[in-house]
Amino acid sequence: MTDSVREDIDITYFTEANSADVVIERMSGTGTPRMAKVMGSVIRHLHAVVKEVEPTQDEWMAAIQFLTATGQMCDDRRQEYILLSDVLGVSMLVDAINTRRPTGATENTVLGPFHVENAPTRPMGATISDDGKGEPLVVTGKVVDTDGNPIEGAVVDTWQTSHDGFYDSQQPGIQPEHNLRGVFRTGADGRLWYRSVKPTYYGIPDDGPVGQMLRAMGRGNTRPAHLHYIVSADGYETVTTHIFVDDDPYLTEDAVFGVKESLIRTFVHRDDPVKAAELGVSNPYWSVETDFVLTEQS
Amino acid sequence: MTDSVREDIDITYFTEANSADVVIERMSGTGTPRMAKVMGSVIRHLHAVVKEVEPTQDEWMAAIQFLTATGQMCDDRRQEYILLSDVLGVSMLVDAINTRRPTGATENTVLGPFHVENAPTRPMGATISDDGKGEPLVVTGKVVDTDGNPIEGAVVDTWQTSHDGFYDSQQPGIQPEHNLRGVFRTGADGRLWYRSVKPTYYGIPDDGPVGQMLRAMGRGNTRPAHLHYIVSADGYETVTTHIFVDDDPYLTEDAVFGVKESLIRTFVHRDDPVKAAELGVSNPYWSVETDFVLTEQS
Repeated sequence: MTDSVREDIDITYFTEANSADVVIERMSGTGTPRMAKVMGSVIRHLHAVVKEVEPTQDEWMAAIQFLTATGQMCDDRRQEYILLSDVLGVSMLVDAINTRRPTGATENTVLGPFHVENAPTRPMGATISDDGKGEPLVVTGKVVDTDGNPIEGAVVDTWQTSHDGFYDSQQPGIQPEHNLRGVFRTGADGRLWYRSVKPTYYGIPDDGPVGQMLRAMGRGNTRPAHLHYIVSADGYETVTTHIFVDDDPYLTEDAVFGVKESLIRTFVHRDDPVKAAELGVSNPYWSVETDFVLTEQS
Repeated sequence: MTDSVREDIDITYFTEANSADVVIERMSGTGTPRMAKVMGSVIRHLHAVVKEVEPTQDEWMAAIQFLTATGQMCDDRRQEYILLSDVLGVSMLVDAINTRRPTGATENTVLGPFHVENAPTRPMGATISDDGKGEPLVVTGKVVDTDGNPIEGAVVDTWQTSHDGFYDSQQPGIQPEHNLRGVFRTGADGRLWYRSVKPTYYGIPDDGPVGQMLRAMGRGNTRPAHLHYIVSADGYETVTTHIFVDDDPYLTEDAVFGVKESLIRTFVHRDDPVKAAELGVSNPYWSVETDFVLTEQS
């Protein structure tokens, strides 16, 4: 496929055969070249879908109504079109295209809608669980460059669901504000460690048009358990990513396709009262180790 | 392109390379085969657009915001998603796919948003101009089958803009209700004739997201002058179409791509006081002749 108009056909008037060419040709030179490229591609593929699918008028109207309802579901707290983009893998694809990195560097995944800007800075080793609910988890690792050298002063912003699958912002009055959120800064050794609780899988909102679509596709709405990270350091590309819990039953069914194989981590169940006491968690507990490998800014 | 998943690649987890396959494969057998076909095509082409265009995160967010705003522009009186479908040629393509007819039969074009169900039935030869404003027009023709035989009892439902480019429903209090609308029924000779005024070109709504998009594409929002028809008869396929005025300056720039070459008619300017008096119009006047050729229902 190409977004240029074919030279060998008459495009004066619309026909079923020349439809995409007629529409693309109508763009004039007053638009930007970028707009022409984007709309050329959109028009070409939109017409290809219609020609492959041959929708009835009723099916076409159902599509119009779906797109309308998806827009009308959006408000200050809900962005149903981002959700649609997420469940069709488009958000992940846009993310992948914009964060291509050399092998060995930590891969990106989607930001998701639950990051907040003003999470509390916490000292290394602190717990981010302000309500203490759930199975204890100790996270250890380091922030390094692609040669394995520690990065000092890297900022690690993390957030996650509670033990029963909700972010603090979804449960105001139940969870304390900023529960399971924290910002850490690495020292000269690049090391990261903090305490938390083990997250679990959860469902993305399915009470709108996107939920209806997922059911019609025979798909679920579950995201496997994960911890979110934004890792940044002066001179390095910022990494927005998750790590995923290796024993989660939904790893291969993430409703938003956020799982990359390189981001799955082994969560080890430990029964070691001495070590638990040393770390300041109750026994038994879980531990996970994860490094973040940043690439230099180009 | 195909909507089947390729066998030769690993689709356990999402990658930039396998993205569409991973998303398509996620559909389970609980959806209908039709839904799987439609969504397979949509997903395949959506991912192809993203790969061709490589949108930045800001561009992707602009697309999300456009789609959201388009939905939120819709209410009981305005359907911005149909407008979007119209200006991208999708409505015409869906119409064309659903109304393929043998050569010689009258071609379909889009219904548009201005048809009303309860237009007045008028006797053959009547005027549909209730306010008398504009240059007089006499429409003559016949409704025939594909062998040229007249069809008796054919119902011709017509509507059009005023001389200055507005439908009655756009100007309540200015135009009388049902101005320039009429339903006629053919006799044994299949003949149609009625009086009206010459329509002019007009702009589709451009005060919403679709108007912004048209401007960014360097496109106008004008539809060339036309008369609308729905022609139906027992035993024949209903034709929804327009005829277009041959001297209109926007014939090759219809914002919704509704013009088909076979639907352009010669509008003749006549200066003939005797004939004008016979027809019951003021002199000078315009005349146009158009036949409607219906195909038998299969």
